[in-house]
Amino acid sequence: MEPARQGVPAPALPAPAFDAMRIALGVSYAGQGYHGWQSQPGGNTVQDRLEAALARFATEPISTVCAGRTDAGVHGLMQVVHFDTPLQRPPFSWVRGTNTFLPPDIAVQWAHPVPPGFHARASALGRRYAYVLLQSPVRPSVEAGRVGWVFRALDGQAMREAARHLIGEHDFSSFRAAGCQARTPVKTVRRIDILQRGAAQAAVHGLVPCYWRFEFEADAFLHHMIRNIMGCLVAVGQGLKPPDWMGEVLQARSRDAAAPTFAPDGLYFLGPQYDPAWGLPDRTAAYDWLP
Amino acid sequence: MEPARQGVPAPALPAPAFDAMRIALGVSYAGQGYHGWQSQPGGNTVQDRLEAALARFATEPISTVCAGRTDAGVHGLMQVVHFDTPLQRPPFSWVRGTNTFLPPDIAVQWAHPVPPGFHARASALGRRYAYVLLQSPVRPSVEAGRVGWVFRALDGQAMREAARHLIGEHDFSSFRAAGCQARTPVKTVRRIDILQRGAAQAAVHGLVPCYWRFEFEADAFLHHMIRNIMGCLVAVGQGLKPPDWMGEVLQARSRDAAAPTFAPDGLYFLGPQYDPAWGLPDRTAAYDWLP
Repeated sequence: MEPARQGVPAPALPAPAFDAMRIALGVSYAGQGYHGWQSQPGGNTVQDRLEAALARFATEPISTVCAGRTDAGVHGLMQVVHFDTPLQRPPFSWVRGTNTFLPPDIAVQWAHPVPPGFHARASALGRRYAYVLLQSPVRPSVEAGRVGWVFRALDGQAMREAARHLIGEHDFSSFRAAGCQARTPVKTVRRIDILQRGAAQAAVHGLVPCYWRFEFEADAFLHHMIRNIMGCLVAVGQGLKPPDWMGEVLQARSRDAAAPTFAPDGLYFLGPQYDPAWGLPDRTAAYDWLP
Repeated sequence: MEPARQGVPAPALPAPAFDAMRIALGVSYAGQGYHGWQSQPGGNTVQDRLEAALARFATEPISTVCAGRTDAGVHGLMQVVHFDTPLQRPPFSWVRGTNTFLPPDIAVQWAHPVPPGFHARASALGRRYAYVLLQSPVRPSVEAGRVGWVFRALDGQAMREAARHLIGEHDFSSFRAAGCQARTPVKTVRRIDILQRGAAQAAVHGLVPCYWRFEFEADAFLHHMIRNIMGCLVAVGQGLKPPDWMGEVLQARSRDAAAPTFAPDGLYFLGPQYDPAWGLPDRTAAYDWLP
């Protein structure tokens, strides 16, 4: 039962049964150990783990609807899901109780009862992602699986110029994965921030190591859209392509025009954005965990 | 062959054989998967992995001496080791070549030839550690194994007052593990900084989540010294003990006086400090990875 696809205005939503409550949860997870968010027959996905833990706590099956699916290896700082249940429990007991049955790298951060008109996916007005990149002659170690990696210096100004081509409402077909199920390739990108992080250091093997943090905000994203944009931004940042090439890629509306899909390791779903009237948190402590 | 223990002035050091070079390496690692730094018969330690990788690259056995051993679960951002070898290789080839044979969560960051008088442990003038703590009603998830955790609010001012008792040269027997091999319990703590990290947020279940970063600098540390100090700082921070209790614990010179040893998860060896004359890097990019 999925009343609306990502980024599409909600149709009339089926209200839960008279005696059921609708609960929204904020969920954080490290993506390395899972085959992405969405339930699979194999079972090793974040949704599978969450629903299994909810079922153990609630002692009845619970199925969830999420704000935005994430790929294998992609992390979530504040995924939001909703579900309907006849159980009456204090909200924080859903947090504590469910976390007891979750693996160490997944945790429910908060639980709020919401009106039946709230829908984790359809009510989302926007989504935010961050991509964290290590620029270093040496591969990641402490941060393995948590950052992308480039071993050439990036030019922040060139990347910012390239990113400007993507702001606004566009057909993002050039950045869309083959299997993408979105109804339309037209999305509105509201913001791309590119920040160099960390103190200046001595060069190692001719390269000054640092982290880069890319932040993306849009009404919704296509499958692989950010990882495909990242591939292009890095090509520009390394001087392989000029900044205006990004505009050409966008205009081409063909996946063949863009750079290869970048690694999932550094991608973090920061969370959906909702009308403040729903009263849901818009961030968790883990936001400050990233450089 | 270990000419000097941690924190003890170096005796006359055996110089390497005439045709050997001494090489210093900076090494970073996540500690979760290993039984600490020091070589063990079982073999799953960071030193074992490093020496196995060096041996594969050098095609001869190489044994290393480190600046400071770390416990199981403790991370290293810039461990420093030295070794002697007859091989003549460009310094960066030791980095790239060794990393090929290391697991993803360990990497050599830099390699420098050093004079035979340099000794990774005995030449160290000081050592720096950081402890990262999550304050939240919810356990860690994305950061599991990378942070300590408290689910009560901490009082930064009270912890800073308590920490002041430890600055200077003292007998730290109260904070020393039973099996500690240091020659003397007298160490000089130069600095303890306590910083609250992250934007202020809405309270979750009555507690505002955030990170705390504790930074420690001393000539050397006893076994478990920082984790035992952390246990006491947290007791003070939660109001279970007054700040001046830290002075009483120190005076007692007995392990029984202190709080239980805190978890290794949030502890990071930032690295040793050497006379700048040796020309070695004093930090790596990963310093900026921590909140």
